[in-house]
Amino acid sequence: MSDATRTKGLEGVVAGSSSISMVEGTEGRLSYRGYKIQDLAANSQFEEVLYLLINGELPNKEQLAQITSTLRERRDLPKEAMDVLRVLPTTGEPIDVLRTVASTLALMDKEVNNTEHDAVVDKALTLAARFPTIVAAYNHLRNGKEPVAPSKELGHAANLLYMVRGEKPPEEDSSALNTYMVLAAEHSFNASTFTAKIVISTLSDYYSAIVAALSSLKGVSHGGANQKAMEMMLEVGNVDNVESFIDNALATKRRLMGMGHRIYKTYDPRAAQLNEHARIVAERSGNTRWYDIAQKIDNISHTHPYFSERKIYPNVEFYSAPLLYTLGFQPDMMPALFGCSRIAGWSAHILEQLQDNRIIRPNADYVGPEIRDYVAVDGR
Amino acid sequence: MSDATRTKGLEGVVAGSSSISMVEGTEGRLSYRGYKIQDLAANSQFEEVLYLLINGELPNKEQLAQITSTLRERRDLPKEAMDVLRVLPTTGEPIDVLRTVASTLALMDKEVNNTEHDAVVDKALTLAARFPTIVAAYNHLRNGKEPVAPSKELGHAANLLYMVRGEKPPEEDSSALNTYMVLAAEHSFNASTFTAKIVISTLSDYYSAIVAALSSLKGVSHGGANQKAMEMMLEVGNVDNVESFIDNALATKRRLMGMGHRIYKTYDPRAAQLNEHARIVAERSGNTRWYDIAQKIDNISHTHPYFSERKIYPNVEFYSAPLLYTLGFQPDMMPALFGCSRIAGWSAHILEQLQDNRIIRPNADYVGPEIRDYVAVDGR
Repeated sequence: MSDATRTKGLEGVVAGSSSISMVEGTEGRLSYRGYKIQDLAANSQFEEVLYLLINGELPNKEQLAQITSTLRERRDLPKEAMDVLRVLPTTGEPIDVLRTVASTLALMDKEVNNTEHDAVVDKALTLAARFPTIVAAYNHLRNGKEPVAPSKELGHAANLLYMVRGEKPPEEDSSALNTYMVLAAEHSFNASTFTAKIVISTLSDYYSAIVAALSSLKGVSHGGANQKAMEMMLEVGNVDNVESFIDNALATKRRLMGMGHRIYKTYDPRAAQLNEHARIVAERSGNTRWYDIAQKIDNISHTHPYFSERKIYPNVEFYSAPLLYTLGFQPDMMPALFGCSRIAGWSAHILEQLQDNRIIRPNADYVGPEIRDYVAVDGR
Repeated sequence: MSDATRTKGLEGVVAGSSSISMVEGTEGRLSYRGYKIQDLAANSQFEEVLYLLINGELPNKEQLAQITSTLRERRDLPKEAMDVLRVLPTTGEPIDVLRTVASTLALMDKEVNNTEHDAVVDKALTLAARFPTIVAAYNHLRNGKEPVAPSKELGHAANLLYMVRGEKPPEEDSSALNTYMVLAAEHSFNASTFTAKIVISTLSDYYSAIVAALSSLKGVSHGGANQKAMEMMLEVGNVDNVESFIDNALATKRRLMGMGHRIYKTYDPRAAQLNEHARIVAERSGNTRWYDIAQKIDNISHTHPYFSERKIYPNVEFYSAPLLYTLGFQPDMMPALFGCSRIAGWSAHILEQLQDNRIIRPNADYVGPEIRDYVAVDGR
């Protein structure tokens, strides 16, 4: 077995040190900057977690007020970004639109290439504030409606719901979305975060790193899984169909979406938190159909030997699907919502990479043809 | 020393196997699919190298005619992409614009998420054909001029020059640009290529991988170096200033751009080829000022102990700077031109990754705070 085989997918390879989050896959534990994810999900607003991830410590009252008001002030999009949004085809996927507009915003920043710490923090707050506005505006535009201007009064998650719905959301809904955003904010060197780290390691710029991270997040083996999980639940259609659906999936070797994780070999700690919020939102909405389907699949994963032997349990995408769907988001909005959350972790890792930078450039094990003579086209 | 320190920047870590190019850093050798870079630079059009990198073999006469005509037919941009180009601010960097429009093109592809081999090859040819059109159109638009429609008669490099200049270029100029594009087409697991590999490893899509690769290429430690090298030569201004400029740079620990390479510890084989073409183009243009400056810096790097002890010699960016500048490209166009070339290698690596895919997701060595109790904001 060659080196190349052993490090396929860089599995188990330590690619650097980080003080941002601790993922203990065997124990099913996750913490941000030393704070257990359960405590943050139960107590913190997304704004507070963004501050924590970027700065390393929870904000005091003044610091929290400061970041909250900064985010509120920066929600509006520049005119040029709105112009681009209006020109884009309405058939695009929201995460591709988010990426395109994030890329456009780079063109309007005269200090785009400034990678000093304070400048990057400033850009991070601006993009984090604008991401929900981009996603909500495109969703209105593709449905033939004028975008709803962001509120300056609401919290980060509540404002996102407000812009999508056009009316102020009830507290339980905002709280559920906030919990999702806190849980999805950071997860160490996952593929999109590692993508952001590589990009900034070349001394490219903050926007480039975020655009690349969005490109990576989209994959169905990564942040695109919540959409696929929801599409799967829609296909199941009814809780009574779950058992036959799973039997069929196992028989045809069809992959179940939102199940299993490279790192967690026990229950994903984020899934448990989302389960609770998904249940509350479903019950309040009077429609528990999608929650019930998710719950039934989850139960089967704990009793059916196929899943328990392989340690395949619901991951963070799994319960986020019925949660976000019940809150009113179409499946294709879900990867973009993941991006609105994960920008917190990406920004923290970009700052950390810049603090002690070295270009990330691995080697390849060359297995191609030996050196051969060039033959002109007439002789081929 | 921890694992994390040893693998910083993944230096020396084998991240996978590849049969696309062989980089022999100690010997200063580079080959694509077994063909020495010297042979390809001397004999091949970019179209032929694109075919070679993607398919693994040089095309025969019919295959070469096919890819050449496919690229010519696909040079036009869709109306929506031109609309976006016209809306973008004229102050942006060309590589950021190329990234933004590449991201936009994803929204117009109804099969955007198709990652089957033939579909990806098809998308690769379309984007490779359109990249020069995007770069040339933006350059005209930012200068207040209407873009020049691509020619269907000219080769890939000649057409690029034609769209930028508005007139058919002489053969020597097209040949020099073609050589640059061949030499810059591929270089194993460099940062941008590895970025593309990670993105596609999540089962994201071809456009996402290319957009992310462009984001990574931009860095001044990577594809942004040709621009910085040219800006440095412009600052030197005259060959008589080279010695004092270098003395000053060494005294102030200023990094010389376009010099040194993680992999090559001897002369970069691409620099030698570009040197020759840069000389020809400069002599023909009647202005050898920038070539002379480059040549003098190169000479000093071989005689001055500071450089020879550290094995810091000109790399591919170094001679590409005076070459491209003399051909009429402003410094900020150079990273975008690099992208027009490297899309060949990126596409080959995306296809190779998809053939035997596993998500690329390394581990982090957590060095942050131990688990601590959450304290409500009032108590902080």
